[in-house]
Amino acid sequence: MTYCVGLKLNAGLVMLSDTRTNAGLDNISCYRKMFFFENPGERVIVVMTAGSLSVTQTTLARLQEAIADDMADETTSVLLAPTLLRAATIIGDTLSRTRREIAEQCRDLRQQASASMIVAGQRKGGEQRLFLIYPEGNFIEATEDTPFLQIGEHKYGKPILDRVVTPATSLADAQKAVLLSMDSTLRSNLSVGMPLDLAVIERDACRISQHRRIREGDPDFMQMSAAWSAALRDSFGKVTI
Amino acid sequence: MTYCVGLKLNAGLVMLSDTRTNAGLDNISCYRKMFFFENPGERVIVVMTAGSLSVTQTTLARLQEAIADDMADETTSVLLAPTLLRAATIIGDTLSRTRREIAEQCRDLRQQASASMIVAGQRKGGEQRLFLIYPEGNFIEATEDTPFLQIGEHKYGKPILDRVVTPATSLADAQKAVLLSMDSTLRSNLSVGMPLDLAVIERDACRISQHRRIREGDPDFMQMSAAWSAALRDSFGKVTI
Repeated sequence: MTYCVGLKLNAGLVMLSDTRTNAGLDNISCYRKMFFFENPGERVIVVMTAGSLSVTQTTLARLQEAIADDMADETTSVLLAPTLLRAATIIGDTLSRTRREIAEQCRDLRQQASASMIVAGQRKGGEQRLFLIYPEGNFIEATEDTPFLQIGEHKYGKPILDRVVTPATSLADAQKAVLLSMDSTLRSNLSVGMPLDLAVIERDACRISQHRRIREGDPDFMQMSAAWSAALRDSFGKVTI
Repeated sequence: MTYCVGLKLNAGLVMLSDTRTNAGLDNISCYRKMFFFENPGERVIVVMTAGSLSVTQTTLARLQEAIADDMADETTSVLLAPTLLRAATIIGDTLSRTRREIAEQCRDLRQQASASMIVAGQRKGGEQRLFLIYPEGNFIEATEDTPFLQIGEHKYGKPILDRVVTPATSLADAQKAVLLSMDSTLRSNLSVGMPLDLAVIERDACRISQHRRIREGDPDFMQMSAAWSAALRDSFGKVTI
């Protein structure tokens, strides 16, 4: 499983992903699920992935190959696409094609292979965009009403986001919100695991403003997690029915 | 969908269920999912249900029929079974048989029909018991380590239970905990809906100590929900990363 969440705020974009990949309970490994495509100051795109590793890795490899290709143009390279919407379309098409090919290969074994992605970014002169790309390649976009998108194990971590995240949330509070959302998920689903990748793109920076890898035992994360548990219990004591 | 939760505490048993039943999004109705079998002072059993209404209603009707039958004995009536474990076995067997029959009827249409149940209670001279009965009729039991059991849409409401419920939790706090757990679920899953049924069985009372139906717009529930949201936002402001 996986948990990835992206927030689109007035102040910028905030993304958080875990790194646990598993095939069954007895085959667990650590793979990065957050990827950067960047031409700093001009364009930045963050892709987060959930689903079959063979689908997500092949999709990402094809996107990278398309960028590096001598014949790369605005219809093939996410760094040359004229808008973020076109870049999301390239990613969606690549994901859809890869997924169909691999599903076809798996058909004899009746195994499923699918994946979804969150794509966040901005190009110079454009707006910030945050998309959720479905396995079929179509996508939806975050709006003022729903400023966050999640993929993977999204349920445990949704109540806190519902309650505290609005477009006006600061980047500092947003990082706290996604980390607390992840904390609830880590406690409840073993197939979501540390380390975490946290990235921030300030509005109009068009570059990765911050990227931090949070490892098992990270003292700041542990302190925040303990403080949140204590604060929740304290709040619980004060509420009456 | 459904959300039902049961807690086994040193002080007693606490159960909460919603009442929304739906077939698709355009066919929504209200059915009670909490049922009492009681011989006050001697024995009390609460059953909560999740799954296909035809399976749960038929199972409950058969359990009631078996109690009323002139030939009722300790192998057929949950009110005569010598222990709560035997009563859970009767319920599990009845559920499993009913589910298999209905699944067989549905086979041509390739429709699924399944259900699970939470069973809580105590008989005079016995211990309090809390079981989760699977569609196949087998069951698990709450323990000191895991004093709560959930059926239906369990994920949204689990983080708060994980953080505040222990066997030492008071009955008042336990009611608050299950109502807050339900509140998070109601906000996130449209197929879980008011009114709610809340029941408390004090330890060794062997009767329903309290049963309350909480309807849409209940002022106490609304006040608690608003206070919890405010307390969460307040706690969120205090935690630092």
